[in-house]
Amino acid sequence: MHQLTIVKVGGKIVEEEASLERLLHDFSMLENSKVLVHGGGRSATKIAERLGIESKMVNGRRITDAEMLKVVTMVYGGLVNKNLVARLQALNVNALGLTGADMNIMLSEKRPVKEIDYGFVGDVKKVDAGLLSSLIAQGVVPVLSPLTHDKNGNLLNTNADTIAGEAAKALAEYFDVTLIYCFEKRGVLRDENDDDSVIPQINTELFNKYVAEGIIQGGMIPKLENAFDALKKGVKKVIITEASQLGKSSGTTVVLK
Amino acid sequence: MHQLTIVKVGGKIVEEEASLERLLHDFSMLENSKVLVHGGGRSATKIAERLGIESKMVNGRRITDAEMLKVVTMVYGGLVNKNLVARLQALNVNALGLTGADMNIMLSEKRPVKEIDYGFVGDVKKVDAGLLSSLIAQGVVPVLSPLTHDKNGNLLNTNADTIAGEAAKALAEYFDVTLIYCFEKRGVLRDENDDDSVIPQINTELFNKYVAEGIIQGGMIPKLENAFDALKKGVKKVIITEASQLGKSSGTTVVLK
Repeated sequence: MHQLTIVKVGGKIVEEEASLERLLHDFSMLENSKVLVHGGGRSATKIAERLGIESKMVNGRRITDAEMLKVVTMVYGGLVNKNLVARLQALNVNALGLTGADMNIMLSEKRPVKEIDYGFVGDVKKVDAGLLSSLIAQGVVPVLSPLTHDKNGNLLNTNADTIAGEAAKALAEYFDVTLIYCFEKRGVLRDENDDDSVIPQINTELFNKYVAEGIIQGGMIPKLENAFDALKKGVKKVIITEASQLGKSSGTTVVLK
Repeated sequence: MHQLTIVKVGGKIVEEEASLERLLHDFSMLENSKVLVHGGGRSATKIAERLGIESKMVNGRRITDAEMLKVVTMVYGGLVNKNLVARLQALNVNALGLTGADMNIMLSEKRPVKEIDYGFVGDVKKVDAGLLSSLIAQGVVPVLSPLTHDKNGNLLNTNADTIAGEAAKALAEYFDVTLIYCFEKRGVLRDENDDDSVIPQINTELFNKYVAEGIIQGGMIPKLENAFDALKKGVKKVIITEASQLGKSSGTTVVLK
């Protein structure tokens, strides 16, 4: 099968000019077919603040009321996404910015209220990988923003790591998919205060051991759980690395066993 | 040739819930292939005001400095565009929101500074009608926001009437195009205080006469000039009508002679 690289970059990278420029350059140099998935939480928080809207976070997740949904729609769907698209076009990458609502590529369901009411937050139900893969085959590079919809007219805020994972799993039917999560550290670290302590390869057994020992904790746990889930559903390789290392063989490679 | 209807709606219609709901319903009922082009100036002005950014207008055109470009990118490319897409998807219209940067469909050039510096405003140079028509042939309904790009990484603010006209002219190579400009009046009026004074059909000769007599003035002049230009470039029909009359045979039909 044809190779496809899906790169997820967090808000911090796309919101700082120097790191963004480098990321876009490195991304444009990837030879395979490719997809970019972006966040934008920091910009959303800043714009919300300027609009007098308070950002409420629970366990690192944004509570998205009606006003905050407008903010993330503006920031993720407009400001961040369209600037990435324009910048990629300048690098001769035929980028197409998409939310889940566009061509109904990613359908989700508003998260049911249990202990916490996350508001207009969507859990992905269905990805139209056929349509995406046909665009990719035509040379189009989808740039996915962390917004989905419920097909009842509502946009829903969806975590960008989840978007990347769901897109990777769905596209695994059409491509040999490598999923790369770029973030601010060099990879999964054995000691979070030592940037040189990157774990080069991790499998489920090691993961469980490191979690039990407290070596892996916090936001890295769901990130790795997503990675294992993606591998179980047919994604060939998951890499967790620093954005500046995109395209190089470094970081942590996640494997099932 | 296959029929295509391009509908341009102004900000006022898409920004009020009742008129928006009706418009989207009527648009969804149009049987031909179709394209929606939207404005959003009122929302942009409101959001800019809340962000403490002053809106400067010259001859009805927005001066777009770097800060205002961010606002229109958020509002046109995100808030208005993505909400329209999600709402259309709920009506089973396979909408795809696009700026000119997406797949490089509409390339423009920053307007040269003469008497007035309009800032980040783009004059359209090239429309990729082949790509648009191939999407339309697949059942996709493009929803065009009034943003273009210069292929050097910059988004540019472009008048929505112009976007509609340029798309219509370029797509005339692939379809029999009807271009419908929806606005708040019933059509081109003989007496602007009399809603029943709609001119049912206007050609260049009548237009010149009415302009000379002061019957047609202000913003209607460039709108009609755009319409005549579109007809000269192969668009089959241009209609100027009230949004609530979409799909009905009313309003003003513009013809060359």
